[in-house]
Amino acid sequence: MRIAVLGVGLIGGSIGLAARRRLDAEVAGYDTDRALLGRALERGAITEACESVSDACRGAEIVFCAAPVGVLPELAAEALAASGADTVVTDVGSVKREAIAALGADPRFVGGHPLAGAETAGVENARDDLFEGARWYLTPTPSTGGVLYDRAQGAISAIGGRPQAIDAETHDRLMAAVSHLPHVLANVLVAQAADALGAGESERIGEVGPSLRDATRVAGANPAIWADIFAGNREAVAEQVDAVAERLRGAAELLRSGDADAIAAWHAEAASGRRLLLEEELEGARLCELRVLVPNTPGVVAEIALALGRAGVNIEDMGLYPAADMRSGAISLYVVGEEEAGRAMELVRGLGHDVSQVER
Amino acid sequence: MRIAVLGVGLIGGSIGLAARRRLDAEVAGYDTDRALLGRALERGAITEACESVSDACRGAEIVFCAAPVGVLPELAAEALAASGADTVVTDVGSVKREAIAALGADPRFVGGHPLAGAETAGVENARDDLFEGARWYLTPTPSTGGVLYDRAQGAISAIGGRPQAIDAETHDRLMAAVSHLPHVLANVLVAQAADALGAGESERIGEVGPSLRDATRVAGANPAIWADIFAGNREAVAEQVDAVAERLRGAAELLRSGDADAIAAWHAEAASGRRLLLEEELEGARLCELRVLVPNTPGVVAEIALALGRAGVNIEDMGLYPAADMRSGAISLYVVGEEEAGRAMELVRGLGHDVSQVER
Repeated sequence: MRIAVLGVGLIGGSIGLAARRRLDAEVAGYDTDRALLGRALERGAITEACESVSDACRGAEIVFCAAPVGVLPELAAEALAASGADTVVTDVGSVKREAIAALGADPRFVGGHPLAGAETAGVENARDDLFEGARWYLTPTPSTGGVLYDRAQGAISAIGGRPQAIDAETHDRLMAAVSHLPHVLANVLVAQAADALGAGESERIGEVGPSLRDATRVAGANPAIWADIFAGNREAVAEQVDAVAERLRGAAELLRSGDADAIAAWHAEAASGRRLLLEEELEGARLCELRVLVPNTPGVVAEIALALGRAGVNIEDMGLYPAADMRSGAISLYVVGEEEAGRAMELVRGLGHDVSQVER
Repeated sequence: MRIAVLGVGLIGGSIGLAARRRLDAEVAGYDTDRALLGRALERGAITEACESVSDACRGAEIVFCAAPVGVLPELAAEALAASGADTVVTDVGSVKREAIAALGADPRFVGGHPLAGAETAGVENARDDLFEGARWYLTPTPSTGGVLYDRAQGAISAIGGRPQAIDAETHDRLMAAVSHLPHVLANVLVAQAADALGAGESERIGEVGPSLRDATRVAGANPAIWADIFAGNREAVAEQVDAVAERLRGAAELLRSGDADAIAAWHAEAASGRRLLLEEELEGARLCELRVLVPNTPGVVAEIALALGRAGVNIEDMGLYPAADMRSGAISLYVVGEEEAGRAMELVRGLGHDVSQVER
């Protein structure tokens, strides 16, 4: 099998590596960045470095467009122009409506979006197992050719992805809610907190709680990626943002009412809602949070993680909360299932630390 | 010195332990929960278990009221009624206006709020160093007696706290912005995401990103504590919530405008804003985020944390991001300063992992 990869960064490079290993494919690569193309060849992510899009597409059964979101529709259009009737062209953009509006009528185009690897960049970080078990959305339209669609989804399965058809609009709305919206909220919360702190006297600044830190972790992250995403999915994201603003008005009203029972019910609903969201993610198992009080010294995280690791208890998530003196603090450990939680607590107690399970 | 502690949970118990060790104080304890009072005596957090508030207050130089926020004003009023002219009564509530409105005219009352230990509960978790280096807000009023105020703040210093005077209104507004608001946002975001996911077809659910997980970490946390806080600080929190709703309207408008430069500027501002917020917290040092790609197996966190610990590199914060297949993933490590970051990267690379510094 021969495939083309246009854009050989983390995603394109990983597609190449996986296709070589799993499909024994020849991989024609192209990138506007010639140095990057050279590194991709060195890494073995591609078998051939091409001079142009049309060179890369020549004879390819599948063309993967893996450039930044903002240029994807244009790149895919170029790939379609350069490809014959029996080539399927797909992309990896995290926003899909625009590409589908432009190219969805072409039977050879299938929009795609693997949920993997947006955290690092560069072909240096490419891995042949990046897509192992990862949801890979595909957005066929009524015009999409059945044989070509089947070829794309078969290849994606073969390189480890879990293809799932979804219409472009639903996809973009879903991503707006679970991925793009939290980034907007984090940005806004930073601005609000900065204002509130600035408004106090300066000697009162500096007591930023762990909740603010967690809530703003993604603020301003990966500007190159997010500028494109915000631009490409602006309608759906704006809609989600408006909906949250509306909910906040409601929450403010609820708080002002002082109705303790209603406030408690609203708070409890959030607890169970989050548990459900995370349980979905963990396929049904209950995520338990353990809170450990520790000295804030090098080695303490290792000591705990090692004790759990030795006993085969996997830590799904972890949060560190240094105390004000930076000499002590708390660690939240998230493990799956009550049994694991019980074992973890015993192990941590055995190390002499105070630990308790956080009830939600 | 003789002090009274009314309410002997985590905070009250820790005050008792610290006062015994640092001030060699006699500690008269009272709690509506007799069993808890017994455990506090066993732990040595108090030296005497009293039958009533007035028994506990008799002869005390300082009375610390450490019950849940909702009952604090009432408890403090009872303590004031039971105390003589030379006793200072203080509390530890995370909301201050209500108590000050009720009791601020009494020269013997000083509102207080230590920023410590809200994460766990129970006298079992009490520690004599819980307040070491922790900001401890005090809210004196024009009526507050100078000698009594000085005694309270001296004792707080002695048990490790860093007392700071602040007026009750500013305190509540500050806490609303940096602590209470993120909890409201997390609750609202959970509701929004649950709706958005529920609105899709059920087989499309289950792809909740790490950004949503971080942003909702405190959703529905500690219901007993938060119901009181939301009720006690409702005006200030509602004001912050309204302000964020307004900001979100602006963000939605900005997104809809499609003005790429303005969106990029807004995003960049969030990045620098967050860095500033965290730098305040870390007293001027720059917090660096390193992203490590790892297999998601027991022991890998330990391996990395141990390598850093051995080399004396402290991990300030950590986030785990399992990939969809739950067999691999990324770890974010936050360390202070470029030099530490460089050393950490070398150490992690030495273990054979891909690591990169995340630029903001």
